[in-house]
Amino acid sequence: MGFDLGDKKDCDILRQNAENYLNKWLFPFPVTVKGSAEDFIVTVRVREKCQDTVPQHGFSEEYKLRVSPGEVTIRADTVYGAIRGMETLSQLIFYDERYKKYQIRTAEIEDSPRFPVRGIMIDTSRHWLSVKVIKRQLDIMAMNKMNLLHWHMVDSEAFPYQSKKFPELHKVGAYTLRHTYSPEEVQDVINYARIRGIRVMPEFDMPGHTNGWRGREGLLSECFDEEGKPTWQDLIDVTNDTNFNFIEEFIKEIVDVFPEKFLHLGGDEVEDFVTQCWDRNPKIREFMEQKGFGNNTRLLEDYFFDKLATRLRRLIEQRTPVFWQEVFDNNEPDPKAIIHVWKGNSHEEIYERVQQITAQGYPVILSACWYLNYIKYGADWRDAILGSVPSNSGYYYCDPQNFTGSQEQKDLVYGGIAAMWGEFVDNTNIEARFWPRASAVAERLWSPQEKTQNASDAWPRMHELRCRLVARGFRIQPTNYPDYCPYEFDEKAI
Amino acid sequence: MGFDLGDKKDCDILRQNAENYLNKWLFPFPVTVKGSAEDFIVTVRVREKCQDTVPQHGFSEEYKLRVSPGEVTIRADTVYGAIRGMETLSQLIFYDERYKKYQIRTAEIEDSPRFPVRGIMIDTSRHWLSVKVIKRQLDIMAMNKMNLLHWHMVDSEAFPYQSKKFPELHKVGAYTLRHTYSPEEVQDVINYARIRGIRVMPEFDMPGHTNGWRGREGLLSECFDEEGKPTWQDLIDVTNDTNFNFIEEFIKEIVDVFPEKFLHLGGDEVEDFVTQCWDRNPKIREFMEQKGFGNNTRLLEDYFFDKLATRLRRLIEQRTPVFWQEVFDNNEPDPKAIIHVWKGNSHEEIYERVQQITAQGYPVILSACWYLNYIKYGADWRDAILGSVPSNSGYYYCDPQNFTGSQEQKDLVYGGIAAMWGEFVDNTNIEARFWPRASAVAERLWSPQEKTQNASDAWPRMHELRCRLVARGFRIQPTNYPDYCPYEFDEKAI
Repeated sequence: MGFDLGDKKDCDILRQNAENYLNKWLFPFPVTVKGSAEDFIVTVRVREKCQDTVPQHGFSEEYKLRVSPGEVTIRADTVYGAIRGMETLSQLIFYDERYKKYQIRTAEIEDSPRFPVRGIMIDTSRHWLSVKVIKRQLDIMAMNKMNLLHWHMVDSEAFPYQSKKFPELHKVGAYTLRHTYSPEEVQDVINYARIRGIRVMPEFDMPGHTNGWRGREGLLSECFDEEGKPTWQDLIDVTNDTNFNFIEEFIKEIVDVFPEKFLHLGGDEVEDFVTQCWDRNPKIREFMEQKGFGNNTRLLEDYFFDKLATRLRRLIEQRTPVFWQEVFDNNEPDPKAIIHVWKGNSHEEIYERVQQITAQGYPVILSACWYLNYIKYGADWRDAILGSVPSNSGYYYCDPQNFTGSQEQKDLVYGGIAAMWGEFVDNTNIEARFWPRASAVAERLWSPQEKTQNASDAWPRMHELRCRLVARGFRIQPTNYPDYCPYEFDEKAI
Repeated sequence: MGFDLGDKKDCDILRQNAENYLNKWLFPFPVTVKGSAEDFIVTVRVREKCQDTVPQHGFSEEYKLRVSPGEVTIRADTVYGAIRGMETLSQLIFYDERYKKYQIRTAEIEDSPRFPVRGIMIDTSRHWLSVKVIKRQLDIMAMNKMNLLHWHMVDSEAFPYQSKKFPELHKVGAYTLRHTYSPEEVQDVINYARIRGIRVMPEFDMPGHTNGWRGREGLLSECFDEEGKPTWQDLIDVTNDTNFNFIEEFIKEIVDVFPEKFLHLGGDEVEDFVTQCWDRNPKIREFMEQKGFGNNTRLLEDYFFDKLATRLRRLIEQRTPVFWQEVFDNNEPDPKAIIHVWKGNSHEEIYERVQQITAQGYPVILSACWYLNYIKYGADWRDAILGSVPSNSGYYYCDPQNFTGSQEQKDLVYGGIAAMWGEFVDNTNIEARFWPRASAVAERLWSPQEKTQNASDAWPRMHELRCRLVARGFRIQPTNYPDYCPYEFDEKAI
């Protein structure tokens, strides 16, 4: 068994994936007798040149896979399409207990994703995650054909990002100096993701959720409780031009560090901090009077986002800003911004929000359906409780295009991101909590709508995927009750 | 640093624990500079002889620990007390970041548990667990000073126990032949537990939840759905004397295999299967007529438990049977039986049940408060949601003696078992789901009532315990929001 990579045999992406699939992923079971499935050559033919830059929005992941007696071929326009095809190839190989050997199914497959953005979000502020754990999630993402890691890097609790220009940020804001990411580690993650056809979109949330930035003197507004006593500072002092200079410099570094063209600037929950940090702050109130904003802190918010856009204009020319949905709700975002939807108490409410935002011409990324940090007993992706009739309230059923709107509006839905806010997850438990729950999201975002109508049909696919990944050494928890894998998770596996 | 074990230097329990604490547990952090805490000798003096048999109900775990300049001594009646003292000793050692060395706190401690039974329950039927994963739970239990593993071995879904006398049981009833426990593996678990002062109480649940036993021909009653069609068989045919012969032989094997004197025979949820399997079964109905039971299947249940007691009399002389609470509710259990309480919708309801059962003179083991398989978002042990006032509805607050009753009744409360039913857990996720949630139960059952009134006080203890165990290489998930450990979980740690 081997890969014939043709004229791309020096391409690192193809080489490393061929090596991983060959040595680790295609034949994962701890069995000693191997059989005929190993005796073939996979011919990989890619039209475009090898990518030495990272994948960007809209990159092609299309591939054709043909498995017939005497021929196994993957054809794709890009190397990323080819590696998606390798994963599909792995799904055609199974270990046959009867004959004690690996077998392969014949197939003729043409495949491409429904949405261009299919991601997960990690939050490295509430709990720090090791690079090793992040890389494992990237491996699993690729096996789920996901293509975007949203790295919610910093927040109120901690600032693990090591800035080269502003080292005071992590020195003061990180939990400890070990709970950080060095520039080398960040590049390591970005490149590890690139090899797997995954974009790394950083988020530096502002102007709220910024207590982690407290290492930067003067950046945060003083805040006051009801009795006028100083309290938790979690909002930028936007009245100070020096702070905009700082933000500009900082974002310049981020643009240098992260090649990804989507740049998430947060903007959520400013309202939660406004009373303490702006309303009760005499200096801010004075500024608002001067500007003629009166008591309306919403106007001060607008001022921030407008000024941010002006200051970042040159940087943002090379980037597409992404904002949480409040910036659409409360302010007027840059016309080329993407709106990240995270609110809504039901699928219907969420669809309505997507409808409204796309009606204004803004592209949307959806997370509201997929806050995987929220857990409950049972198989919440399908929401079936043992013995009950499967309902359609599980989050698998959330479809980002399930709203009434024009084709233009539907096309503005870029996809979705399964979010894992970090309050209760860290290295110990994030992997099993993410997977296979995020696999339900991955299927929703890759596969055609008409083939993903029913969680009962998805279940066997989820189960098979889980067992394959468990055999590969990943902690993919039970999909549904009851369930067992031919080979169970064993820490010795890798 | 070393252990002076005195005249017990050949005792395997002391030797193995001394070795583990010395090489793995006392100095777990991945730091290179070590300091003065390493330069001392721990004198261990045990009055009673080394245990080459397993610990049994009521075994002494009392110890005295003295740490002063020039002296570190653990004194105990039993080796089990001594190893509890070693764990406490480990809690006095900390790595001091300022001086880059380990330090030890001086202390004078006399300690013993509040309840004799402090356990966790694993369910190896719904999902199989590897011996390696079970052993890891035993390690963590010892670090939480827990002393009983309740092994819910078989159930409706699968029969992983390899019986020597009746191999057809696992051959038919196990998920696969790999999803089993060989006699050697069972002994391995029992001995691994013994070394850590942990009893292994097996449960073979009957007469319901028995579909896993289907390899035994004729054991299960035929069952019928509403339309009279054959359906899922999950209840023993108790009308057949051959089946009692089989049960007697089988339990004889179990008594040979498991030295633990508590023998859990289940008895729960018979009612769930009665309609299909007894009411609608003509053969059973005929038997009931003959016996004069009429339509009253409750009398057939009584018949089963009475006959079981008679048949097992000789075996049970050496054992104490444990039954789930329905056997108390619906039948008349053997007067020396222990009642395992698992039902109740509130702490108050649960206390009332414990009151009623102990009033009848039966000892009680409590699990109703601690079904750790049920999960929800947040720190359910303390039930505090971020920003809200800590409530006292978290399961930490459940106190098994919190009922109105005589001292005799209180003394009949043997303790509790944190149960992890296996529907949604397996090797991939059981460890992080158990811990530190079961640590809250461990503290409730070990420490005095007056010192465990408030979850807010317990939190820092839980946090410290978690971080120590994380550094030792165990997957102990975040205790509460927010949280970080000086050294985070890293799979390379052990």
